[in-house]
Amino acid sequence: MEARRWLAGVTFPADRPLINVSQAAPVEPPPVALRRAMADAAMDRPEAHLYGPVLGNPDLRAAVAAEFSRSYGGTVDPGQVAITQGCNQAFCATITTLARAGDQVILPTPWYFNHKMWLDMQGIAAVPLPCGEGLLPDPDRAAALIGPRTRAIVLVTPNNPSGAEYPAGLVGRFFDLAQERGIALILDETYRDFDSRAGAPHDLLARPDWDRTVIQLYSFSKAYRLTGHRVGALIASTARMAQVEKFLDTVAICPSQLGQIGALWGMGNLRDWLAGERAEVLARRDATVAALSGLPGWRVKSAGAYFAWVQHPLAESSASLARRMVADIGVLALPGTMFMPPDDPDGARHLRIAFANVDAPRIAQLAERLAALSG
Amino acid sequence: MEARRWLAGVTFPADRPLINVSQAAPVEPPPVALRRAMADAAMDRPEAHLYGPVLGNPDLRAAVAAEFSRSYGGTVDPGQVAITQGCNQAFCATITTLARAGDQVILPTPWYFNHKMWLDMQGIAAVPLPCGEGLLPDPDRAAALIGPRTRAIVLVTPNNPSGAEYPAGLVGRFFDLAQERGIALILDETYRDFDSRAGAPHDLLARPDWDRTVIQLYSFSKAYRLTGHRVGALIASTARMAQVEKFLDTVAICPSQLGQIGALWGMGNLRDWLAGERAEVLARRDATVAALSGLPGWRVKSAGAYFAWVQHPLAESSASLARRMVADIGVLALPGTMFMPPDDPDGARHLRIAFANVDAPRIAQLAERLAALSG
Repeated sequence: MEARRWLAGVTFPADRPLINVSQAAPVEPPPVALRRAMADAAMDRPEAHLYGPVLGNPDLRAAVAAEFSRSYGGTVDPGQVAITQGCNQAFCATITTLARAGDQVILPTPWYFNHKMWLDMQGIAAVPLPCGEGLLPDPDRAAALIGPRTRAIVLVTPNNPSGAEYPAGLVGRFFDLAQERGIALILDETYRDFDSRAGAPHDLLARPDWDRTVIQLYSFSKAYRLTGHRVGALIASTARMAQVEKFLDTVAICPSQLGQIGALWGMGNLRDWLAGERAEVLARRDATVAALSGLPGWRVKSAGAYFAWVQHPLAESSASLARRMVADIGVLALPGTMFMPPDDPDGARHLRIAFANVDAPRIAQLAERLAALSG
Repeated sequence: MEARRWLAGVTFPADRPLINVSQAAPVEPPPVALRRAMADAAMDRPEAHLYGPVLGNPDLRAAVAAEFSRSYGGTVDPGQVAITQGCNQAFCATITTLARAGDQVILPTPWYFNHKMWLDMQGIAAVPLPCGEGLLPDPDRAAALIGPRTRAIVLVTPNNPSGAEYPAGLVGRFFDLAQERGIALILDETYRDFDSRAGAPHDLLARPDWDRTVIQLYSFSKAYRLTGHRVGALIASTARMAQVEKFLDTVAICPSQLGQIGALWGMGNLRDWLAGERAEVLARRDATVAALSGLPGWRVKSAGAYFAWVQHPLAESSASLARRMVADIGVLALPGTMFMPPDDPDGARHLRIAFANVDAPRIAQLAERLAALSG
């Protein structure tokens, strides 16, 4: 919200429009066939307008269970799936079943600020786990942070804000650690549809008793451009699902029915279209890495999904730099300080560049404008 | 959720179908013109599918401000309105800005169980304020319950579960009390469109500095049959709105765009239709009161909006009675125990009869079946 306020009152010349690399979501509407399916449902299906089950519609829960079973080579039952009003709510519900005020949750840094905000609101301490080379978190460092009030470790992969794709082996080591120490491992895979790797990004759902440790989160917003409908998913044990149901019944009652109808239609009909979307995002990632790697003093530390995590060469903190960039070079990017604890100097040195909505010519312009930044 | 499970495995003969008086919401879809407006938006308005402002769309916020200013003879600014993913979420957001674990909130009993559930989840004590004659809460009794950690009093009017319409003078006395003691007065008017009285149900929004004390909640779900879209509203000071925005940004990001489009269309186009809906609900209330008042031993303690709060003549607790009624007489009603603290014997003696979805012939059958209940 803060970054959007920076745009107020700033005008951009027609020959140098704003390049907005702050957006972590699609800015185009869904394909027309999906819009048609939702419009038809609005007319023809009375239940599209009325309360549905707290944990989501059975057909969508079953489709998610089948998709995760298939693509992760694991076993997920529809009863282990909840549909939520967006993936942030899935995180809020999850945390409420795990921790209370005074407890601790480990978040690799840079972190996704909405996770931090919910923990703050609940009086739960976010324990930062600074990432190392390639923006990967280290299970051994995490192990040293686990105390008697630690309830969970949260991994976001592909990561927001860094774009880092966590190797399957690394995720597996976090599973082993969490299982051994009796805490939860929360895996937020909001951007999984844009992972560059072939095959399953981890094998956790194929492990016996995965549901004693793993809580997996997903969003339909990015894949099918349904951000305005708020539809996410949460995969966990049926025992935890009973607790999740209480939270959702109290805060949500049910997720949007039309949004669920759209998500299910997308899963059933947009596989090829989504493959094309993914290819385009991966091409933009490659273009961004190539363009920024050529800039003197700039370093792309990691890149994937919608994001590159970039070190800038200026002495100025990213907090003021990002704001100044709007007027000076017509670029809106988010400063690393938004994703870091205030006492970590790494925040000041980095920017998050969300390239997914920027085509190749504008990526080239972005690089030119960044090169023109004066210190 | 529990009551719905009672239906599992029970079959009802064709000549004696279930009479469901458990539902606090419409069971028919919105008028076809509203469905058409939403379907058209799904096709023609790209923004209907994408993220919108955290606090809701400006046009809907302005419409709510205008409507509440007009119908309450007060002054509500669009900046004092937030749109939420349903009215329950408006309550959750409100409480989060007011209270933390260990604080207290006063709820008249019988209470709306979702309010109680959210307070429980947050570690906030719900202090029961037993209602007196006509199911009206007493400000003097409330005054005696206010302690150093009391943060708010919650009034639901017309009330769920009792149906009681709180007189304007009574609401005004609660305002005076809350203002004097420096606590918030939360007014949940989810069922305001079915209030039997002409004119404004209270004058609080016309009082100077109302926004230092009052937080008003509303739902579009009942008036326009939009339960499946989850759209509610919260009216409060702009200072509180900044806090509400943080909560909504973390849990919701934004309310459903199509739901907001539907709600705005309804406000602009369904005034006459809604007047007809209200007249029908009021007629059903009168029919219910007349039919049940004639039953030996039964007493209608209050009735309004969708609900009658009814004392039964049996020795058995409503907790088991309500469950037994499903199989014995084909009636699903909620027991008073669901709306009461466990140590209050009044819960056992009462049932909530939600008559709004039951037409006159079935109301007559309902009375016949209740009369046939054996003790």
